[in-house]
Order: sequence, then structure tokens, then C-alpha cells
Amino acid sequence: MKNGIIGVVAGVGPWAGLDLTRKLLQESVAERDQDYPTIVSISEPSAIADRSEFLRGATKINPAVAITDQLLRLEQMGATVAGIPCNTAHAPAIFDVIRAGLESANAQIALLHMLEEVGHYLREVTPSIRRVGLLATVGTYQSGVYEIVLSSAELIVLNPPTDQQTIVHDAIYNPNDGIKATGHGNDRTLNALESVADSLREMGAEAVILGCTELPLAITTPTFAGLPTIDPTLILARALLREIVECE
Amino acid sequence: MKNGIIGVVAGVGPWAGLDLTRKLLQESVAERDQDYPTIVSISEPSAIADRSEFLRGATKINPAVAITDQLLRLEQMGATVAGIPCNTAHAPAIFDVIRAGLESANAQIALLHMLEEVGHYLREVTPSIRRVGLLATVGTYQSGVYEIVLSSAELIVLNPPTDQQTIVHDAIYNPNDGIKATGHGNDRTLNALESVADSLREMGAEAVILGCTELPLAITTPTFAGLPTIDPTLILARALLREIVECE
Repeated sequence: MKNGIIGVVAGVGPWAGLDLTRKLLQESVAERDQDYPTIVSISEPSAIADRSEFLRGATKINPAVAITDQLLRLEQMGATVAGIPCNTAHAPAIFDVIRAGLESANAQIALLHMLEEVGHYLREVTPSIRRVGLLATVGTYQSGVYEIVLSSAELIVLNPPTDQQTIVHDAIYNPNDGIKATGHGNDRTLNALESVADSLREMGAEAVILGCTELPLAITTPTFAGLPTIDPTLILARALLREIVECE
Repeated sequence: MKNGIIGVVAGVGPWAGLDLTRKLLQESVAERDQDYPTIVSISEPSAIADRSEFLRGATKINPAVAITDQLLRLEQMGATVAGIPCNTAHAPAIFDVIRAGLESANAQIALLHMLEEVGHYLREVTPSIRRVGLLATVGTYQSGVYEIVLSSAELIVLNPPTDQQTIVHDAIYNPNDGIKATGHGNDRTLNALESVADSLREMGAEAVILGCTELPLAITTPTFAGLPTIDPTLILARALLREIVECE
């Protein structure tokens, strides 16, 4: 018997929510339907303002408000632990507001911090790695959230130059063939991402963090541009499963 | 603005629930996160007895009870329309009980009937096809639900011989490499399924229905054993999206 229910804020973005759920199933040990964990999920992307837009001031609506509301609804549905499959939503200007909102609502749901889980993973599973390159949205880069969280793990985060940051952002956000619009990469977006990862490797990166949850939908190989990939969605999936302990 | 919220009973089985959600996103027209529909989902497979086991009398617990409960919870979460991505759950001994349960609870949620949608599709999109082969679980075969539903569309359903029906069932249910345990097919299960589809073609089938929602996870090609594939999960996804009409 599993002792807990996993809640997923699945609309940030919808393809990333799907990818987290897929990884929850993939990482579960199951022989039949009934062995899989209970997962409740709300994908309501229209209610959640774009995280990067908010961080760069293009909208005043903090996506934290809608995300908190959805977390409270997941708790009503029985969720005991939850994850938000969006790196940018972990910037303090958003995540701290979510945490405060849950606290003031006396929520009991345990909200995991995906980036802190990445820090644990890097420290425990790949302790020899010191310098990690970051592929992310402009919002995540500008917030410095990875530097903040990983510095406590004594890791150095390498960001690409600003012009290359916008290349990564476009591969995710392009309305025609970006990953948010299609759910996957294509030759153009993958080549663009690889050129940035090449730069990160040349800067001394020993691994590359796929620091936007749309990126693992396009980059599905264990290495990219010669660097081992770190997939925060997969790390979050394993952390969520860890929290619903088996008991007899 | 979309006028409705889609509910998914995602635990029958969990990989099929994921596949339905994937197809809901894939069939949505979207340039950015906020364009995607709202989807609420409950995957609680441990609560739902196996549908085939119930139909063949191996358990007395009708999975209809848990499925109805989950549909009512999806309605509480705001769902206006819902689908059940399990062909076997559409056997009258289960589906009629679900419908009656919703009615007696005065539920307002519109529950689509996946197999009736397959009938509409075959009549409207492929009107020249008269004889369709069926790959399905033993429960679905024994219930005769496809014959019942498709006879009103003047279609003839071809079932493989009984010994071949168990081959299909095993490809889905085998605890080691069946699709329910792994989320995908392998050489062994695909060869087994192809041998049955070969028989269906030799019996005169003009198309093959992937009549268990695990099958489209293994058979992802537009034709199989030389027959066009009919994917009920994809048809259900499109029907659910049709129900949440765009309005200004």
C-alpha cells in the first residue's frame, strides 16, 4: 500500500506536466495497473501567467497566485505531496509567494522544491561535478535561482552569454516550432540548443542542466553536446515517489 | 476562451490515461501554454478492480463503483465532460452501472462513450469500411461490446479465434513485458500482436481496431499487418476537445 497521493500542477506548461506524469509511471515498479501510485493532476494553463513574463516585468500578475490556488485544489483532491514542473516558477519572486500562500491557508500538502532536489542529486549522485552549465528560460537566467540554490551545494553554475540565452528561450517559446507549441524539438531547435551547450562545454561545464521542463521533451539523450544531461523533471519524479513511502 | 473542462479517469490503466492526455495536447491548437485546454485528472488505479477479471467472474467487485466515484470527484474539480480510456470498461455490465451511478447522483458531467465515438468515426470518416478486425482484452471480446455498439453503424466486427485472443491479452497483461507493466511494446509482444492482426486480415478485415487503450502505446504506426489502424484513444481525445467549444 502506498502511503500518499501525488499532486501535479500540470499546466506549467502542459507538455511538461505530461512529461512529469510519464516519468512518475516510468520510475514506478509495477506489474499491473493496480501497482501504480495515485496521481491527481490539474492542468489549467490559461489561469497561470507566463513565469518569464512576470519575472521580467511584462506582466504584473504573479503566477504564484494561480499556482497556489491549484495546489490547494490538489490538496482537496487528496494530494499529500506535490511538485511544480516549471523551473522558472522556482524563482524566489514566485516560489516564496507560493510557499507563503500555502502557509497562510494552513495547507498540509508537502510542496517539493525541484531545484533543491537537483542540488541533492548533484551532491549525492555526481559528487565529482563542480561546474554545471545551464540551459533555461530568460526568466530563470535573470532570476539567478539556480546560482542561489546550487551555491549551497558548492556548485558553480555557468550561464551562456546573453545573446545565447535568447536562443534557448526561443527554442522553448517560438509560437511556430517552439517546444511549448509542439511538445517536442525539431532540427532547428535542437541545433540551436546544441550550439549553446557547445559554448557551455567550452566555458568548462562538466554537465548540462536541462533547466526548463520543456527541454527534456526535445533533448532525450543521456548526453548532449558531449555533456551528461541533468533532467530536473526526472529528479522531481523520483523525489515525489520517495515521499509516498510503501507500508504494509 | 474554452467553454468547459475535460476530466480524465486516468488510472485505467495509468499508461492509457497518460496517452489520452498526450493526445488531448497533441490535437489542441496552441502557440503557448495558455492556449491549451483545462484538463483535470485522477489516476487512482489501486482503487479500480481489473475490468477483464470482473467480466469473466474472477472478482465480484464491479470496477464501475470506483470509476463512478472518480467521475464524481472530477466533476467536483470542475470537469464538464469526461472520458474513460479503457475499452473493457465500456462493456454494458460496467458502463451501464457507471451511467446509472452518475444519474442517481444527479451528476451534470457529460460522460462520453468511447466506443460509440469509434462508431461515429468509422461511419463518417471511413464509410467504405464494412468489416473491422478487433484486437482487445479477453474481457472486451467476451462482452461482445464492440459488436453491440458497431452493429448500429452497420459494421461487422471480426474477432480472432479464442486461442489468439489470449495472445493479445498476454501482450497487454504479461507482468514482465506486457504493455501495462512497461508502457510500451517490445519485439515479442509486437510479433505476437502482428500474428493475430495477420489472421484478422485473412478473415477479411479492412481495418484493425486497437480495442484496448494499451495497444496504441505499442502500435504507433498508421497501418499494422497491412491494415489501417483505428485508435479509440485518439478518437476519444478529439471527441472530448469537440465538447469544450470555443466561444468569445
